Amino acid sequence: MCSVLSRVRIVQRIASHTLRFRSITEGSACAVTESRRSYSGLSFSIEPLRDSRRLYCTSMAMRQGLLFRQLFESESCTYTYLLADTETKEAVIIDPVLETLDRDVKLVKDLGLNLTVAVNTHCHADHITSTGLMKQRILGLKSAISKFSGASADIQLAEGDKIHFGKHYLVVKETPGHTDGCSTLVLDDNLMAFTGDALLIRGCGRTDFQQGSSSKLYDSIHQKIFTLPEGCLIYPAHDYLGQTVSTVGEERKLNPRLTKSKEEFIKIMENLNLPKPKKIDISVPANLVCGLH
Amino acid sequence: MCSVLSRVRIVQRIASHTLRFRSITEGSACAVTESRRSYSGLSFSIEPLRDSRRLYCTSMAMRQGLLFRQLFESESCTYTYLLADTETKEAVIIDPVLETLDRDVKLVKDLGLNLTVAVNTHCHADHITSTGLMKQRILGLKSAISKFSGASADIQLAEGDKIHFGKHYLVVKETPGHTDGCSTLVLDDNLMAFTGDALLIRGCGRTDFQQGSSSKLYDSIHQKIFTLPEGCLIYPAHDYLGQTVSTVGEERKLNPRLTKSKEEFIKIMENLNLPKPKKIDISVPANLVCGLH
Repeated sequence: MCSVLSRVRIVQRIASHTLRFRSITEGSACAVTESRRSYSGLSFSIEPLRDSRRLYCTSMAMRQGLLFRQLFESESCTYTYLLADTETKEAVIIDPVLETLDRDVKLVKDLGLNLTVAVNTHCHADHITSTGLMKQRILGLKSAISKFSGASADIQLAEGDKIHFGKHYLVVKETPGHTDGCSTLVLDDNLMAFTGDALLIRGCGRTDFQQGSSSKLYDSIHQKIFTLPEGCLIYPAHDYLGQTVSTVGEERKLNPRLTKSKEEFIKIMENLNLPKPKKIDISVPANLVCGLH
Repeated sequence: MCSVLSRVRIVQRIASHTLRFRSITEGSACAVTESRRSYSGLSFSIEPLRDSRRLYCTSMAMRQGLLFRQLFESESCTYTYLLADTETKEAVIIDPVLETLDRDVKLVKDLGLNLTVAVNTHCHADHITSTGLMKQRILGLKSAISKFSGASADIQLAEGDKIHFGKHYLVVKETPGHTDGCSTLVLDDNLMAFTGDALLIRGCGRTDFQQGSSSKLYDSIHQKIFTLPEGCLIYPAHDYLGQTVSTVGEERKLNPRLTKSKEEFIKIMENLNLPKPKKIDISVPANLVCGLH
C-alpha cells in the first residue's frame, strides 16, 4: 500500500523527469481574510459569528486548508471535481471531460493551483476524458486510473493507494460492478466520497456492459461505501436530475435500488432495458488511452 | 427590522390561519452518526480523524445543525437552494423552478423537512417560479420576495429582514440593478450568500430590461456583496458553464466585469447586445403572481 506520490517519484526517477510546479499565487482564492467581522458599507447589523467552527464547503476548505469545487459537463451530465491544498497549491482533478477542458484548465490557472494528478474513477463509456490533453497543457500532470480498468495511465491505482495533494489525500477503494476497474475515492477524513458510477444519487451505474456485474456492484456499495460514516458526502460522477450531492445515510435509507436485497437488486438491474450509450464505441477506445485517440 | 417570521405571525393572526408543520422524521438524513471511527468491512486502515472541525457542506451542516442542498434546473440553468435546520426540520427554499417542482417537493418530503418559506431572489424573466404550486402541495408554506419586485407574495422583504428557519436565518440585502427588486440572501454567519442574478460566477445579471440599471448593480455588488468576508461562498441563481460556487475573494479578483471601474462596467453592460430572453413575456407576468398565471 505505497502512496501514489511515492510511485510517481519512482516513475520520475526512471524517466529522468522532474515535476515542476507552477508557482502562480496571483488570483488565488485561498487567502483567509483577517477581517471577517468588519462589514463596511452595510446599513444593518448582523450578530457576531456565533461559532467559528460552523463553515461550509469552500470557505471551510479555506479555513482548514482544502479548496473544493464541483463542476458540471452538461452533454454527458458528468461531474468533475477539483480538490486542492490551499497552502501548497497542489491539486487533484477527478473525472475531467474533454468538452470542458478549457474551463477546467482556466480555473486551475486562475486559482493558482499546481495540478499534479488527474484521476478517472473508471474507463467511461459516455464521454471522453480530458486527462491526455490536460497533461499537454499542464506541466508535470500525471494521469491515474484503476489497474483493473485496462486503460493506460501514469499511475495504476489499487485498493488502499493514497493520492496525495499537499497535506490531504484521497484513498482508493476498489468498487467494481459497473466496470471491473471502478474506484471510489475517499477523502482522508472519510467525509467525502467520489463514487464514480458505482453509487449515484438515488441510483447506481448500469451493469450491462464493460464487465458489468450487478452482484459485484451490490457488494461494492454495501461493503465499501455504505460502511462509511452516515454523514459522508456522496459525490457521484453523474446526475441527470440536477442533484449535486447526497450522503451515505440518505442513500442507505432512500436509494430505491440499494435498499433492496441482493436478489431483488440483481433482478432490477437485469430489467432496466437501457439503450446502448450513444458514445460508447468512441469513448471506451479513447478512454483506454487517456482520451488521446 | 422585524424578523420575517414575526411578520408571518402578524399575517397569520389577521387571516386567522395557523401554521401547521408536518412532523415527518422518517427518511431524514440529519442524524449524526456516533460511529464515525468504525470502518467495518474495510480491508485497509485509515488514519483517525485528525481534526474534528474539518467538515464540508452537508456533513458540516449536519454537525452544526444545518442541511444544505444545491439543485439545478437545466432548461433555464437555474440553481435552487434548500437550507434546513436539522433539529427542528424547518427549511427554506430559494428560487424553486416550475419544471423541477416534483423533484423539490419529493426531496423536502424524503428528508422529512418542514418547508416554511419559499423565497425568490427577484421576479425572474427566464423561468417561472414554482412557489405558487409548491404552496398548494406543502401546507403552511409562505412565499417571499422583495417589496420592490412588484410581485405578490405572502412576505414582502426589505433590507435587514431575517428569514428564520430553526436556529438559522438568512438576512435580506437589497441589491438592485438587474431589477429593482433583487435581493441577496446572506446566511447568519456571513459565510454563504445567495446572490440571485446580481452577482454570477465571473459575471453578473444583465441590466437592459425590468428596471435594469448597471450603475445601481455596480454599487449593489461593491457595497453589499464585495464587503462580505473574502471566504464567503457565492451561490448565484444561474450558471451556464457548469460552475457551482465561487467566493467573494475570487469574484473581487477574477470577475472580468466587476474588477473594472464603474464607468467601464457601465460601458460593458451597454454593449452586451444580448437577445431578449425567450420566456420573458410569459415568465414575468407569471412570476408577479407566484407562477400561478
